[in-house]
Amino acid sequence: MTTHQKIKKSVMLSGVEAGNTAICTVGEEGNELFYRGYSIRDLANYCEFEEVAYLLIYEKLPTQTELDAYKSELKSLRDLPAGIKTILEVIPARAHPMDVIHTGVSALGIIYPEEKISIEQTRTLANRLLACLSSILLYWYHYTHHSKRIDVMTDDDAIGGHFLHLLHGSPPPKLWVEAMHTSLILYAEHEFNASTFTARVIAGTDSDYYSAITGGIGALRGTKHGGANEVALEIQQRYANPDEAEFDIKQRITNKEIIIGFGHPVYTISDPRNEMIKNIAQKLSTDANDMGMFNIAARLESTMWETKRMFPNLDWYSAVSYHMMQIPTALFTPLFAIARTSGWTAHIIEQRLDKKIIRPTAHYTGPNHREFVTIDKRDSQL
Amino acid sequence: MTTHQKIKKSVMLSGVEAGNTAICTVGEEGNELFYRGYSIRDLANYCEFEEVAYLLIYEKLPTQTELDAYKSELKSLRDLPAGIKTILEVIPARAHPMDVIHTGVSALGIIYPEEKISIEQTRTLANRLLACLSSILLYWYHYTHHSKRIDVMTDDDAIGGHFLHLLHGSPPPKLWVEAMHTSLILYAEHEFNASTFTARVIAGTDSDYYSAITGGIGALRGTKHGGANEVALEIQQRYANPDEAEFDIKQRITNKEIIIGFGHPVYTISDPRNEMIKNIAQKLSTDANDMGMFNIAARLESTMWETKRMFPNLDWYSAVSYHMMQIPTALFTPLFAIARTSGWTAHIIEQRLDKKIIRPTAHYTGPNHREFVTIDKRDSQL
Repeated sequence: MTTHQKIKKSVMLSGVEAGNTAICTVGEEGNELFYRGYSIRDLANYCEFEEVAYLLIYEKLPTQTELDAYKSELKSLRDLPAGIKTILEVIPARAHPMDVIHTGVSALGIIYPEEKISIEQTRTLANRLLACLSSILLYWYHYTHHSKRIDVMTDDDAIGGHFLHLLHGSPPPKLWVEAMHTSLILYAEHEFNASTFTARVIAGTDSDYYSAITGGIGALRGTKHGGANEVALEIQQRYANPDEAEFDIKQRITNKEIIIGFGHPVYTISDPRNEMIKNIAQKLSTDANDMGMFNIAARLESTMWETKRMFPNLDWYSAVSYHMMQIPTALFTPLFAIARTSGWTAHIIEQRLDKKIIRPTAHYTGPNHREFVTIDKRDSQL
Repeated sequence: MTTHQKIKKSVMLSGVEAGNTAICTVGEEGNELFYRGYSIRDLANYCEFEEVAYLLIYEKLPTQTELDAYKSELKSLRDLPAGIKTILEVIPARAHPMDVIHTGVSALGIIYPEEKISIEQTRTLANRLLACLSSILLYWYHYTHHSKRIDVMTDDDAIGGHFLHLLHGSPPPKLWVEAMHTSLILYAEHEFNASTFTARVIAGTDSDYYSAITGGIGALRGTKHGGANEVALEIQQRYANPDEAEFDIKQRITNKEIIIGFGHPVYTISDPRNEMIKNIAQKLSTDANDMGMFNIAARLESTMWETKRMFPNLDWYSAVSYHMMQIPTALFTPLFAIARTSGWTAHIIEQRLDKKIIRPTAHYTGPNHREFVTIDKRDSQL
């Protein structure tokens, strides 16, 4: 018989431990962040994104030799098969870019199927996705927006550099490549967030890697999850200067409006990633000699703290940073997806090693034993 | 601070209530099945599949007038846009049909996007999927297997009839249409199974309808979930007769092999759907004057009960039934997906009305505060 163990704290698992993981923790106080035991501060300050992706996927930090080999492998996997290009050319320009990678990853799962589940093969499939998600996105982008079939193979050293190169058509400045490393590292992993949990539930049925990743992309797309960074930019762009921003946001707070980009379901004191991404946003703005948006974002940060004791989450200054690198808003969440593919992969592997299906039960709140009436005797009031 | 509420019974939510639902229950004893309070026996005995899909999606049983209008709407939605056909023609013949509908639904989400979340629109999108999933599947099937571009618009009255008509190229016998009604009704809904739970987690982030359904398809694909009915057929086809089947399965039981098609995570005494689908399998076999596979399946059922006290689940005689209707094995799980689209939709609507994100936490089992070593000082032993 089914065990009916009630969730006491709240509905729908909020704050409930849904399983074990050795990949990530927010620490005992719940306001730090560690990937495989390493502080996010060290990883973001000293690592390239590929180093952190390696840590998540291979369970250890690479040596220089390992990292070089890993980056060579990633570089070799940037190309797209002809079938994927045909599919991308069918997708209209008005499509949401998250839907583009959603369909692209699903189709890639047909062209390079996962024949048999093994950790080694999962890693190879993950590396191809990390390498070619930018290609999928920007091949479609230039084809539909500029009627151009771009060459997706570039010589850029890093995933973030490859993305910016394909987007802008030329190798990006060093500062931008570094900014991308930090941003992608901060977005790479975050415990049992909704998209990662989705990927684990799918992996738990012994389905294939692509189904699990596509599920993650689908969940990340929602405005209560990854979709939030696009909204953060919209808020910042509403204003001409910090004073106007402060005045308006105070009114909105009075009207009990929810301000996207602030607060987090896991963190209550501060988001440890905020300081690092804020630093990146400031550097990029200083370099561009354009502090306009940064100053508006910073004023809104202090206003939200003074009036509501609310802190910005990672999305807030990511929006400023991406904007300063001239990344179109609709590509913000896909960048999050590229970064998180490393974390999703780590969780898919962990879930597969766990070998368990995730199959909760539900608390039934509907009617019991309703009398059935055949269709000839039903009236429209039933 | 995060509340760390431990799961006592087992890891990964098995048997834990993960939320509320008014859509489905297995009853207090855990060995019955009700859709919106109506017994599965009444629904399977007296309803068409479209009637049950209507019950799940519109929250009431339709009158005859409502059912007629609903079926007319479904008939009108069978066609595929040109872009989807182009994409299907790119997909190779060796693809898993579950991957075909996975990519197809994802692409359909681009062509007919969900502009704004509303219950009315969700229902319309669901109806289109229920109507055209067979078209997606069989357009691809005939194009890749028989180099034929089929017309997907038929005059069949029912979804099951449309599927069989497209598959075999002619209107199906009445008995087969009835068998499809029963089979699709039994597969339509089952509480918080892994694919439905996946769809709810995705819907909980306020992502779109297609992302949630694609997630469900991805989870259903796994061999621990929908993929099981394909394996059930393989087991039955291993044997030439019931005696051989019994002899071999007893040896496998001795060798502690898991026999797919038996047992269920929710049911412990019997699967209430088994009797109904067994009846269908028997009728189809009698009608075809070919009891061979049915007799093997029945002998394995009695052997499993006598030796292991294990009962067949819905997949066991579904395999026989589908085989008797000359449905290729690889299309079994996609049929399950077509049926379950009605249940997934009901849960997506319910989750959206709940307005909550499903974001559990994890129990951390990894290392704490590892000392970070920069890459120039790492050796390969680390």
